Amino acid sequence: MKNLVAGIDVDGIQTTFALVDEFGKIYAKGSFPTSDHKEFKNYVARIKEEIMALSGMLDIPHDISAIGIGAPNSNYYTGDIENAANLIWKGRLPLAQQLSAMFGNKPVVVTNDANAAAIGEMIYGGAKGMKHFAVVTLGTGLGSGIVVGGNVLYGHDGFAGELGHIKIVKENGRPCGCGRKGCLECYASSKGLRRTAVELLEGKNESTRLKNIPIEELTSKDIAFAAKAGDPVAKKAFEITGEYLGEALANLIALISPEAIFLSGGVANAKELILTPTKRAMEKNVMPLWKGKVKLTLSSLEYENAPILGAAALAIKEIQKKNTTVARRKIF
Amino acid sequence: MKNLVAGIDVDGIQTTFALVDEFGKIYAKGSFPTSDHKEFKNYVARIKEEIMALSGMLDIPHDISAIGIGAPNSNYYTGDIENAANLIWKGRLPLAQQLSAMFGNKPVVVTNDANAAAIGEMIYGGAKGMKHFAVVTLGTGLGSGIVVGGNVLYGHDGFAGELGHIKIVKENGRPCGCGRKGCLECYASSKGLRRTAVELLEGKNESTRLKNIPIEELTSKDIAFAAKAGDPVAKKAFEITGEYLGEALANLIALISPEAIFLSGGVANAKELILTPTKRAMEKNVMPLWKGKVKLTLSSLEYENAPILGAAALAIKEIQKKNTTVARRKIF
Repeated sequence: MKNLVAGIDVDGIQTTFALVDEFGKIYAKGSFPTSDHKEFKNYVARIKEEIMALSGMLDIPHDISAIGIGAPNSNYYTGDIENAANLIWKGRLPLAQQLSAMFGNKPVVVTNDANAAAIGEMIYGGAKGMKHFAVVTLGTGLGSGIVVGGNVLYGHDGFAGELGHIKIVKENGRPCGCGRKGCLECYASSKGLRRTAVELLEGKNESTRLKNIPIEELTSKDIAFAAKAGDPVAKKAFEITGEYLGEALANLIALISPEAIFLSGGVANAKELILTPTKRAMEKNVMPLWKGKVKLTLSSLEYENAPILGAAALAIKEIQKKNTTVARRKIF
Repeated sequence: MKNLVAGIDVDGIQTTFALVDEFGKIYAKGSFPTSDHKEFKNYVARIKEEIMALSGMLDIPHDISAIGIGAPNSNYYTGDIENAANLIWKGRLPLAQQLSAMFGNKPVVVTNDANAAAIGEMIYGGAKGMKHFAVVTLGTGLGSGIVVGGNVLYGHDGFAGELGHIKIVKENGRPCGCGRKGCLECYASSKGLRRTAVELLEGKNESTRLKNIPIEELTSKDIAFAAKAGDPVAKKAFEITGEYLGEALANLIALISPEAIFLSGGVANAKELILTPTKRAMEKNVMPLWKGKVKLTLSSLEYENAPILGAAALAIKEIQKKNTTVARRKIF
């Protein structure tokens, strides 16, 4: 009997799910549009139905031991999604509890996609065997999953790890979705990269292929494509993005002293274009004590499957935790 | 038989030690000048001698279960002091190992004073029962001890928690002892407070009692004294200090989501003078998610005894850890 887990990645548009083993091998995979169901209850029932169907199609004997879910604004401690701006259901959604009830009380755990990415890196990727590291996801926004002593840092309320909302520009910072100004994610994310490129385009008359694209249609992918072809403005936009990110990572290092930091997500998919300037700025700004000592690298998980692998790894991590019993003798 | 621990606080000038129980009651206490001994070996022997003498004077039957030491630049993982600028012995000093050998291999643990302060707060102070919090020590410099899941965050190499070396001023920052510029501790510490006051004095002709003190003699205590008496320049210096600190704490919260943050050390001894502006800036800058939710308060440990209580608590925490046995069953 093969032990598998289900990994589920929820975003505003798509819900993707897979059956995965402890080595990160994906046995079956599927997806459906998240907004298919107006009622949250029906959405949860659909997840169960889809996973059962996937399991039924698999022709090797297997057991689904646990279910891990990466979802926006979700809380590991409560199992709920809380006030997610990008989902159609509002308020507090008891995702883990409802799904677990449908699966005969199997362990179901949720966390946000950045924490799932960190666990994915730890179980399947470049952070195997590491106890202290961080994964920074550079998508539309900037998320981070911080691992301390082998466990994700969830903090007092389950929402720790908001590196994207470190304020890095004090005066006239860009407005952030969180309601404040100057947050890191306004600079180091696909949105941030785009805004930086637009500012560069407005300010200069330099020859650049980006001028051929109407500004409102310009995407971070266009910028990456142009930068790879050597376009100076596009390259400059990546350099500025990396500079902001590297400075923030130097601060992160001072607080958590990680063995390594991994970059993942869409912007990280531009590889050296973002890695090189980030590393330069990180090394320039970090305390002498850590110069040349903290590895900065790209996530080793395949970009396409990273979210579901992270979710699956979350389930595996949970089983490992449950198998650890703690006995205490008290003297003091 | 009473179970006691020895707590030792090492600084460049004085070595203070005490025998303490699990409730923070100090049974006996002593000190000697740290620089009495040119040879590190003799310094360690002196510690042993002093603790034995203290123990011999105590007329209740007792056992010293473990020894905790707060010392600059010390590493919990290795037990060594590493390249401490303020001590007369250079390089790597195997303090825990040598002292443990002299005490028949009793557990001896070291960490820096900020981490010891955090453990002191957890075992004896306002952080009892808390799993996620931070203690910020505002002394000559700024140290921080971060507790995550009930354990101090030492990081990969033992040196995590350097909140004082978060860069908070990007352009023309004050030069820092670490070799960089614009670190938080150049602004939020007794040195920082003093520099801020001096800048205010240079810039203005406002009436202030601080002008009666020659600038090279001005101390942070003078500034606190004047501020308490209502001096506007001294009060302004505290407000600016609190503003820098509060902004940095808002960033710390985004990363670790603590239940509470405690301020300790000399500058925190000015109580509301520093607490009020820090809280204001923290609440102004923190993400909406955490507004009004993270407690900012003064350490509840008596200022005078906080360092040795922190060191004693480190020893108690170590015994608690050793009494926790972990059994694992492996499925994945």
